[in-house]
Amino acid sequence: MVDIGASWMSDLKHGICPPAFWFNREQCCYPAKQSVFEEGNCSTWKTWPEIFGLSRNGTGPYIISYIWYVLWALLFASLSASLVRMFAPYACGSGIPEIKTILSGFIIRGYLGKWTLLIKSVGLMLSVSAGLTLGKEGPMVHIASCIGNIFSHVFPKYGRNEAKKREILSAAAAAGVSVAFGAPIGGVLFSLEEVSYYFPLKTLWRSFFCALIAAFVLRSLTPFGNEHSVLFFVEYNKPWIFFELIPFVFLGIMGGVIGTFFIKANLWWCRYRKFSKLGQYPVMEVLFVTLVTGIICYPNPFTRMNMNELIFLLVSKCSPGDVTNPLCDYKRMNITMGNSVIEVTEPGPGIYSSIWLLMLTFILKLALTIFTFGMKVPAGLFIPSLLLGAIMGRIVGIGVEQFAYSYPNIWFFTGECADSNLITPGLYAVVGAAAVLGGVTRMTVSLVVIMFELTGGVRYIVPLMAAAMASKWVGDALGRQGIYDAHIALNGYPFLDSKEEFAHTTLAADVMQPKRNETLNVITQDSMTVDDVENLLKETEHNGYPVVVSRENQYLVGFVLRRDLNLAIGNAKRLIEGISSSSIVIFTSTTPTQNLGPQPLKLKKILDMAPITVTDQTPMETVVDMFRKLGLRQTLVTHNGRLLGVITKKDVLRHVKQMDNEDPNTVLFN
Amino acid sequence: MVDIGASWMSDLKHGICPPAFWFNREQCCYPAKQSVFEEGNCSTWKTWPEIFGLSRNGTGPYIISYIWYVLWALLFASLSASLVRMFAPYACGSGIPEIKTILSGFIIRGYLGKWTLLIKSVGLMLSVSAGLTLGKEGPMVHIASCIGNIFSHVFPKYGRNEAKKREILSAAAAAGVSVAFGAPIGGVLFSLEEVSYYFPLKTLWRSFFCALIAAFVLRSLTPFGNEHSVLFFVEYNKPWIFFELIPFVFLGIMGGVIGTFFIKANLWWCRYRKFSKLGQYPVMEVLFVTLVTGIICYPNPFTRMNMNELIFLLVSKCSPGDVTNPLCDYKRMNITMGNSVIEVTEPGPGIYSSIWLLMLTFILKLALTIFTFGMKVPAGLFIPSLLLGAIMGRIVGIGVEQFAYSYPNIWFFTGECADSNLITPGLYAVVGAAAVLGGVTRMTVSLVVIMFELTGGVRYIVPLMAAAMASKWVGDALGRQGIYDAHIALNGYPFLDSKEEFAHTTLAADVMQPKRNETLNVITQDSMTVDDVENLLKETEHNGYPVVVSRENQYLVGFVLRRDLNLAIGNAKRLIEGISSSSIVIFTSTTPTQNLGPQPLKLKKILDMAPITVTDQTPMETVVDMFRKLGLRQTLVTHNGRLLGVITKKDVLRHVKQMDNEDPNTVLFN
Repeated sequence: MVDIGASWMSDLKHGICPPAFWFNREQCCYPAKQSVFEEGNCSTWKTWPEIFGLSRNGTGPYIISYIWYVLWALLFASLSASLVRMFAPYACGSGIPEIKTILSGFIIRGYLGKWTLLIKSVGLMLSVSAGLTLGKEGPMVHIASCIGNIFSHVFPKYGRNEAKKREILSAAAAAGVSVAFGAPIGGVLFSLEEVSYYFPLKTLWRSFFCALIAAFVLRSLTPFGNEHSVLFFVEYNKPWIFFELIPFVFLGIMGGVIGTFFIKANLWWCRYRKFSKLGQYPVMEVLFVTLVTGIICYPNPFTRMNMNELIFLLVSKCSPGDVTNPLCDYKRMNITMGNSVIEVTEPGPGIYSSIWLLMLTFILKLALTIFTFGMKVPAGLFIPSLLLGAIMGRIVGIGVEQFAYSYPNIWFFTGECADSNLITPGLYAVVGAAAVLGGVTRMTVSLVVIMFELTGGVRYIVPLMAAAMASKWVGDALGRQGIYDAHIALNGYPFLDSKEEFAHTTLAADVMQPKRNETLNVITQDSMTVDDVENLLKETEHNGYPVVVSRENQYLVGFVLRRDLNLAIGNAKRLIEGISSSSIVIFTSTTPTQNLGPQPLKLKKILDMAPITVTDQTPMETVVDMFRKLGLRQTLVTHNGRLLGVITKKDVLRHVKQMDNEDPNTVLFN
Repeated sequence: MVDIGASWMSDLKHGICPPAFWFNREQCCYPAKQSVFEEGNCSTWKTWPEIFGLSRNGTGPYIISYIWYVLWALLFASLSASLVRMFAPYACGSGIPEIKTILSGFIIRGYLGKWTLLIKSVGLMLSVSAGLTLGKEGPMVHIASCIGNIFSHVFPKYGRNEAKKREILSAAAAAGVSVAFGAPIGGVLFSLEEVSYYFPLKTLWRSFFCALIAAFVLRSLTPFGNEHSVLFFVEYNKPWIFFELIPFVFLGIMGGVIGTFFIKANLWWCRYRKFSKLGQYPVMEVLFVTLVTGIICYPNPFTRMNMNELIFLLVSKCSPGDVTNPLCDYKRMNITMGNSVIEVTEPGPGIYSSIWLLMLTFILKLALTIFTFGMKVPAGLFIPSLLLGAIMGRIVGIGVEQFAYSYPNIWFFTGECADSNLITPGLYAVVGAAAVLGGVTRMTVSLVVIMFELTGGVRYIVPLMAAAMASKWVGDALGRQGIYDAHIALNGYPFLDSKEEFAHTTLAADVMQPKRNETLNVITQDSMTVDDVENLLKETEHNGYPVVVSRENQYLVGFVLRRDLNLAIGNAKRLIEGISSSSIVIFTSTTPTQNLGPQPLKLKKILDMAPITVTDQTPMETVVDMFRKLGLRQTLVTHNGRLLGVITKKDVLRHVKQMDNEDPNTVLFN
């Protein structure tokens, strides 16, 4: 639905289909079998000047088209931003950083609710249609996760158990990518590599099944309109040659550099938005960016068209006599080399002008994406990244092609099968797209799988892998975090990164609360009154309290949650006779013998008798490992059985930040 | 090297290349551009009867070929079995169950050593050449792991740290599959899904890099001899139609049934071998099976050829006028249907005879594989499984094709593009191969990725996924374990399966040692003499001992390993003056004040002050989870800080077996 809606509304900026206004241009022109790329050749489809009785070409109609284009864009963008602002503030952005955080165990209420689902879907259609430099693929993951979350409430086994629900969310994320790109396996791997925190094998094949069904339903509805059910299906009939690995790795390096530059620039702008007055006018910001985008992008045919269409143009190969694609304006001629006649291609004028336009497009799209990602509309990053990479790749590809054309006798060309043009610029576009997406997100395996599911290019695994690796290495060398991790840090979400090793030598004793000279708030198992406990609850704000044998002998008995304590004491006071403020609270199974006061309150039922403990001498490396792998919220620190303190997830996060020389106070919690 | 050697020796059974004896048949015939499949048409290659001056065809030469074939097979098999028996008993089998066990934390000394590497490589070439029903792909994982293990000793950081070494082994397993199938991504996923126990994201992209290099080197040497660097590269130009999902899922179900039948039959035979006299004559067994295989397989052309070649034949599509492939004996004719002329194919006599031969081949290969896998020669299962599935799939495919030919007007055929033959039997062979391999190994995602890396069929993800899921479900319903897990259980390796959830309600107190009425062997921190400790070491066989405050106050101080204790006491007695049998062993930092006896022995340095502990009330579900995720060998059980007992990995494994109503005494340890 999002695909169909966005496609219809995008075309609405240009014109309408009078026989059936609910058709987009492709559907409108389909009966006449006219290509989408041959603008102006479909007579059924009417542009806005034609609707107003003007001709299609000329300066007047051009200006009218221009104005209508910008006005529609502003309408869509304002609708999208207002809907998000009014009904579902969580619907903005791609949602992947937040879903990563949720899957690591943090709960953001309403983030995956039905309002978010509805507004995100509608807002996504609108913001894509507004021609903003954003993709609809990332938010699909959020939409799918919302559906997963809402659906899980149908089955209490999953809806009430946060851990089980997270398994559903992992599978939903896989399904989201599966439908976004028509890439089921890439989706599962994306969920594994990028989104999920803890991904047991059981979840792997459940996600696999979920992605399979998603791909199957997608194929039944075939929104991409071609029988191959791959978004950018291309088929190159030439294998790559060894020499080409050099430009491929170069593309990978450039991808890493561009990705890192993008992350840093985008973060700088988002930080500026966050701490300046700009953050208070999100709708105005969206309108302004839309206006600028519309005005700048309309004149250049490459920036005017949908980003998907442009990517398709960039990755496709040039067949002889191809006239519609400006990137295929070659003069073909046969030359004699040694004793064989080979066909070579000399670039025509269309190529040169296209290259200049592409470079302009690259700069514009890069700048616009930096300002767009992070605005308060639903916005994904995949398609803009792929586009930037495809432009870069195509330009490099044409360069290598012309190099091979100019020097056909160099050994590394002649060594291979020296028939016709051995360089396919479209393949460079695919590799470049993978490189920039890799630089932005730091994916590896999932990236390669998504790319070859997207393009059908299973023969080109090695080039794609080489570019992905180079991109990741260069990116990691220039800046540690991918865009999602950077946004998690920017927003201060309590996310304990499972990719990085904790390599310091601190001990649990250095991190635990309380520090020296402070007292530890504990509850004794059989000597505190209801009043004592209530005072403790009032004076402190901890989520839970350790229960010990006695103040003198602080041997650990168990752990009790603040929520349970509040509830149990409240209920007991109301419902059980004889319970007063001076009743002793008892966590043991036996009542103390010399019980002189009022009836004691037995709370053994709410006591967690199996809290996870570590000793004070445990290296923090082990503690961090336990927090990650066991998904702990806190652990108790003991020495020779005696309770010394508590380490919460917040303490761990602060400590990790501190050790990395970052400000520990940027971590939000609750 | 293994590929080239095996290919040369396999051809040696049939004949030799007189101009260059080190050429295999393909290389020998290559200059004449003669196909490998057209047996008898290459004049450079000489069969054995020709070498002896006889003609190529006729009864006499046939019998001579037959005898030479069997004799060579016996020679290769006896060499392989003897080498394994004499030099490296660990080189037998596929090695994957053992590598899984090693990666779960168990140490098998010498299993990944240089002798195993050498003998496994040579033995693998020999046993493949002997024509036994086994593949060389599984053992490649073992060979790669050996290389990884040997190589890790070059870098002390990896060689001396078992956990780091396991990361290398995970990557090596990925590289093994990557070179075995030319499937780098499939290799990484195989390592993740099937082999590795703990697979952090860091290992993911390191494995990815390793597999990339492996694939790259493989492509440079191109052992498969075709430019696409995929083993069974096929290109079908027809998309699949919806109706076909029914036969695809049927293939999946059959794959699950066949896989489970194979596992059960193979296990039954392996158990028989293990507990009967047969196990004492491994070389004789190999020779007998080779003799039977040779005698049975020679007459049938499908069983005589290499399994790889047969699979290629089964998955390839029939082009018009294809005469060399007996599976393509169709009569082509044009018929008029409605208002369009379509080409249909009627099966010729070659098809019918081929189907009967294929059925025979299926039964023979299934039976032979059951007896072969588990013999004391290097032997893999991938290729035999793929072959069984491809045969099944091709037969079903021809059936569906003929059904479509007989009833071309049924709605589910006419609804789709009704041009020529819409059913591709080769695709059924691919799907069938995936189904049986899935049924045998229970892989899902990695299976689909390997299959489409193998065949280049990226368009057929949904059919492959559907078959893989159906196969896994049916397989899991019929028998819980895949072949590798079944062999782990058969051999009693201490492997704590991370795929299965522990869903019982037992507590740590129920599992810990000692049971009631037994005493716990502990060391006190400052009151036992050297003699006491040495007696304890003599009387008990534990790998380690908890250290407590005192016998009366069993508060846990730490854990000390038997090995460290032995070493420290031995060294102290030899090297430190004043240490005698009556010296007090002290684990605290302060010496007790009233020290009247001889100089105390301070052992605080060898004390692990941070043992992992759980309380006696901890559910075993949590304990099992901690063992899996933290890779524990033991955990200490406390109650209110007091030490109650110990749970070792063996206790956990026994308990899991007991809960699953299996014999807990089948678990081996050490």
